[in-house]
Amino acid sequence: MQLLEICRQAKGVKQQMAALSTSKKNDALLAVADKLEECRDRLTAANAVDIENGRKNGMPEGLLDRLLLTDNRIAQMAEGLRQVAGLEDPVGEVLSMKKRPNGLMIGQKRVPLGVIGIIYESRPNVTADAFGLCFKTGNAVILRGGKDALHSNEAIVACIREALEEQGAPKEAICLITDTSHDTAREFMHMNGYVDVLIPRGGAGLIRTVVENATIPVIETGTGNCHVYVDESADLDMALAIVFNAKTQRIGVCNACESLLVHEKIVDKFMPSLAKKLAEKQVEIRADETALKASEGVADVVPAEEEDWGKEYLDYKISVKTVSSLEEAVAHINRYNTGHSEAIVTNDYSRAQKFLDEVDAAAVYVNASTRFTDGFEFGFGAEIGISTQKLHARGPMGLLALTSTKYVIYGCGQVRE
Amino acid sequence: MQLLEICRQAKGVKQQMAALSTSKKNDALLAVADKLEECRDRLTAANAVDIENGRKNGMPEGLLDRLLLTDNRIAQMAEGLRQVAGLEDPVGEVLSMKKRPNGLMIGQKRVPLGVIGIIYESRPNVTADAFGLCFKTGNAVILRGGKDALHSNEAIVACIREALEEQGAPKEAICLITDTSHDTAREFMHMNGYVDVLIPRGGAGLIRTVVENATIPVIETGTGNCHVYVDESADLDMALAIVFNAKTQRIGVCNACESLLVHEKIVDKFMPSLAKKLAEKQVEIRADETALKASEGVADVVPAEEEDWGKEYLDYKISVKTVSSLEEAVAHINRYNTGHSEAIVTNDYSRAQKFLDEVDAAAVYVNASTRFTDGFEFGFGAEIGISTQKLHARGPMGLLALTSTKYVIYGCGQVRE
Repeated sequence: MQLLEICRQAKGVKQQMAALSTSKKNDALLAVADKLEECRDRLTAANAVDIENGRKNGMPEGLLDRLLLTDNRIAQMAEGLRQVAGLEDPVGEVLSMKKRPNGLMIGQKRVPLGVIGIIYESRPNVTADAFGLCFKTGNAVILRGGKDALHSNEAIVACIREALEEQGAPKEAICLITDTSHDTAREFMHMNGYVDVLIPRGGAGLIRTVVENATIPVIETGTGNCHVYVDESADLDMALAIVFNAKTQRIGVCNACESLLVHEKIVDKFMPSLAKKLAEKQVEIRADETALKASEGVADVVPAEEEDWGKEYLDYKISVKTVSSLEEAVAHINRYNTGHSEAIVTNDYSRAQKFLDEVDAAAVYVNASTRFTDGFEFGFGAEIGISTQKLHARGPMGLLALTSTKYVIYGCGQVRE
Repeated sequence: MQLLEICRQAKGVKQQMAALSTSKKNDALLAVADKLEECRDRLTAANAVDIENGRKNGMPEGLLDRLLLTDNRIAQMAEGLRQVAGLEDPVGEVLSMKKRPNGLMIGQKRVPLGVIGIIYESRPNVTADAFGLCFKTGNAVILRGGKDALHSNEAIVACIREALEEQGAPKEAICLITDTSHDTAREFMHMNGYVDVLIPRGGAGLIRTVVENATIPVIETGTGNCHVYVDESADLDMALAIVFNAKTQRIGVCNACESLLVHEKIVDKFMPSLAKKLAEKQVEIRADETALKASEGVADVVPAEEEDWGKEYLDYKISVKTVSSLEEAVAHINRYNTGHSEAIVTNDYSRAQKFLDEVDAAAVYVNASTRFTDGFEFGFGAEIGISTQKLHARGPMGLLALTSTKYVIYGCGQVRE
């Protein structure tokens, strides 16, 4: 189907989607979950085609693994939808209705965004996840997934649409762009008037392409060059546990620690034990001269280069810089970070507050691992991505981020003087 | 100065701006207000150059009037800044701090956006207004005004900077792009990493250019093709007063009514009295066949053409369409409106609620004039524009729209399992 026709169909069900009751939406989500499990064989068969093509095209093992659908992963997708069904529906709430001196009653009503576009890579689970969150918030979603996952995505969308039709919900609530050419992707980014917001999900390259090309509003989600700053007053055992967790608990994620800042007064004491601990996981340390000297003999440490400070390794690597003050740490972070997650380990009250105040990022921590920046860990029950920009939503985005508001005004004949 | 250097300077004071206390900001705003009044003669002298150039270039009288600075208008700019000083400072408030099961305390702190870019036409008062709102919210602002107002803007910015320096506040809180070429404007729209948000203020052409070209997030402000729908159950006297007010109280504004929808059951009764009333202001009525017949002999009414339904006249003109149901009215509005302000006049409870629910616009009214969509009328005490898009801010934007949030997390050593 032509892109324009897909966009028209999604826009065409906006009003119907916005009017769906919460119970109708929840019933449909549960039905979709059941359907995905029923369709297990269809889904894995379609996925097998993608996997085979991937192998033929020499796709690396890591990507093949991300692409693979197993019975267990299908069950997880279904379980995700059931969880979303259990979440509170934010649509319809009226916030802060106030009476103006002229008697007008003015409130803000929470409404769906309308049509949400998602551009992503080759993780088929995103197809079901994104649908669930958009559907729960009364939005139609147009998906443009990676070429390599096309057969899997087509099968997932077909199953979801069948379940929606059986439930009497509009099947156009989920639309898939099957023409995966770059030209069509670019055209999609210019569908102002049809698509209300575009959310790219994937690596830095994909996100940059969308930000640079889209004329539709984009919510930029995030790469994370996250720092932990170990202050001179830090409890060094705590600092060790936090840095080790933030760096190694999971390496390929945006909230992992990529760079460590250490106060010069404790660098000699802290670095040897840290280097030893990180060596357990074969973490490569790329350190400035002072930190390098402090760790010598304990582990393999190499000199950091300027480009290390700005790098999101997503690997068993960490850069380490020695600083002489909190101010230097904050200035370094604000220069090199990507606005994601930053942590200080300290026992000093005023330095903790200063760090919280002055570091410019979506999530700023005192005495905790950066790995907590996540919709589930924050208690939202879901996550569509982590926004690293400042408009509309910043930080982990749950259901609320997929809604807008409109002013509703109750009058009794008021006119303006 | 080169654009990049201007952007660097604005970015360079972000942290300092974010840290300014409310009292410091208010003192500076009051000092700027006094300074503008003191500099009256400098400002009018600079403005005289722009006016003379405008005349030479054949600028129409209406635009010359918008460009003109008088003592009275300078006093109004100063008064606007004093009012902004009196408003509550939203920065620093922590919203909904909650404790997670693992003991992490997570809250959302209201913070400045950072650097705000404003692209506008030749109204010099915007220079002071935009500065005031951005400064109060701890943002640095980079202004790119119209070429025709360059001398006026330079003088205003110079006065503001002098007052800021005297107050010990960073003068880079306000920066002016003096190279008013289109190339530089386009370059400005791509200053990701320096400018956090771009707000275009002006006509439809300017806004479209910014939306289509910017890679920085844009808040789209608005053109308004606003409708009033007069339902069969309406109090026709009230309807008459509302339509007359919404159409004629001020014609050149985005919240003026441009199109009227009338239920077929009352069109014969309502149109003659409305046509007579609108004739008082020589309003041209462009009506469909039924409404035209109903008004015949009362006033000059011409047949509407398809293109009338989508037009923002900003003039003494109104289009009129007869509809057979609320559903038809809602469908027409959702097809042709610009997402600004829409009103129903009705005494029917369920139709009022249905209209509020189903019309997709920033502000939806029952029994009141669309002219109230305004930051002052909504009680915000200020307005930077009216957003007609759904991300970040929708409807009149006051100080809150110039802020973002960041998550602040207080831990005691938590790491992720």
